[in-house]
Amino acid sequence: MSNITLIGTGNMARAIGTLAVAGGNTVEVMGRDQSKADDLAGALGGATAGKWGAVPAGDIVITALLADGVVPVIAEYGDALAGKVIVDISNPFNATADGLTHSEETSIAQEAAKVAPAGASVVKAFNTIFRHVLEKGRPNVFLAGDDAQAKAGVAAFIESLGLRPLDVGDLKMAHWLEGAGLVTMGLARHGVGNWDFALGVTEFPG
Amino acid sequence: MSNITLIGTGNMARAIGTLAVAGGNTVEVMGRDQSKADDLAGALGGATAGKWGAVPAGDIVITALLADGVVPVIAEYGDALAGKVIVDISNPFNATADGLTHSEETSIAQEAAKVAPAGASVVKAFNTIFRHVLEKGRPNVFLAGDDAQAKAGVAAFIESLGLRPLDVGDLKMAHWLEGAGLVTMGLARHGVGNWDFALGVTEFPG
Repeated sequence: MSNITLIGTGNMARAIGTLAVAGGNTVEVMGRDQSKADDLAGALGGATAGKWGAVPAGDIVITALLADGVVPVIAEYGDALAGKVIVDISNPFNATADGLTHSEETSIAQEAAKVAPAGASVVKAFNTIFRHVLEKGRPNVFLAGDDAQAKAGVAAFIESLGLRPLDVGDLKMAHWLEGAGLVTMGLARHGVGNWDFALGVTEFPG
Repeated sequence: MSNITLIGTGNMARAIGTLAVAGGNTVEVMGRDQSKADDLAGALGGATAGKWGAVPAGDIVITALLADGVVPVIAEYGDALAGKVIVDISNPFNATADGLTHSEETSIAQEAAKVAPAGASVVKAFNTIFRHVLEKGRPNVFLAGDDAQAKAGVAAFIESLGLRPLDVGDLKMAHWLEGAGLVTMGLARHGVGNWDFALGVTEFPG
């Protein structure tokens, strides 16, 4: 099992935290508003609340933040994240959610890697999954990253949640996973699955 | 059932043509090498061979060509494609198949639309599916396009093949479907499904 820290106290932090506790992981919650972190840690049961900006207890640090917040918060934490595996779950959608906020071929995960401290590595994961699907289904989880060991750790954590990790490759693939987030939004808006679905793989063996 | 014309005589033309004939559609094949078109039409059984550059018999024209060939061939056909629904199935992968050949936020489908004649419309579809999977499985088929009527026609054709069409939105989403092609390649290269899989949706109703 894994030691994880959730930075963020919103719906995705709650959804991932709930699965993480159920999967037997050690969970810490950090929020800029300490009372929200305390509340979420209590609600998750068995989780602890850390102090904003301190060194996270978890080896895996999930930034459960809106896309705009991820890079600034990682920069703010700075050396407190040294040696950590940082998991970016965000979707930098534009205002109409039919394109990304960055026009260049980058991603929040790649930008996060630029500001992360030495020895930290960034993995993109979870961004193609609607929060309510994570609460009731067992969707596939795509992940991308440059550090094989970090990805293996995140994959093991994903498996502890009862979900299937799907490695798509290096961190530069995070750009195309953000695009897969747009594809998921597009499908939902065009009548697929009444929003109760996730992108995944179907196997045709033999 | 649909009237379709395949421009191209390669493996994808054969795979789609086989399913199209089995699905009760009227199928025409066109190739720059007439003997290859004749051969494929004969192999498909009940299909006809058209003449390269002539007005296609099909209402739906599938350019089953390598990505580099799609835009030039549509330009070459010119007004012969007036009023047709053109289906681009290509993946403009770079030499290492870990990125696209165009760095801007466009797609072969969008570039094809720029050279297509008046009254023609372009739909992106099929590009996330490995040919061998199309031959043995029932993968989901993502599609994108600006013309709702054209997309409805292509969706009906896809259903006639026993496959599920998944509308992701406007033609600009073709860029992200090409990205989904890269995600599919990335998954295959990282041990998912031994190449015998396709991207699709999993529903979690209720």
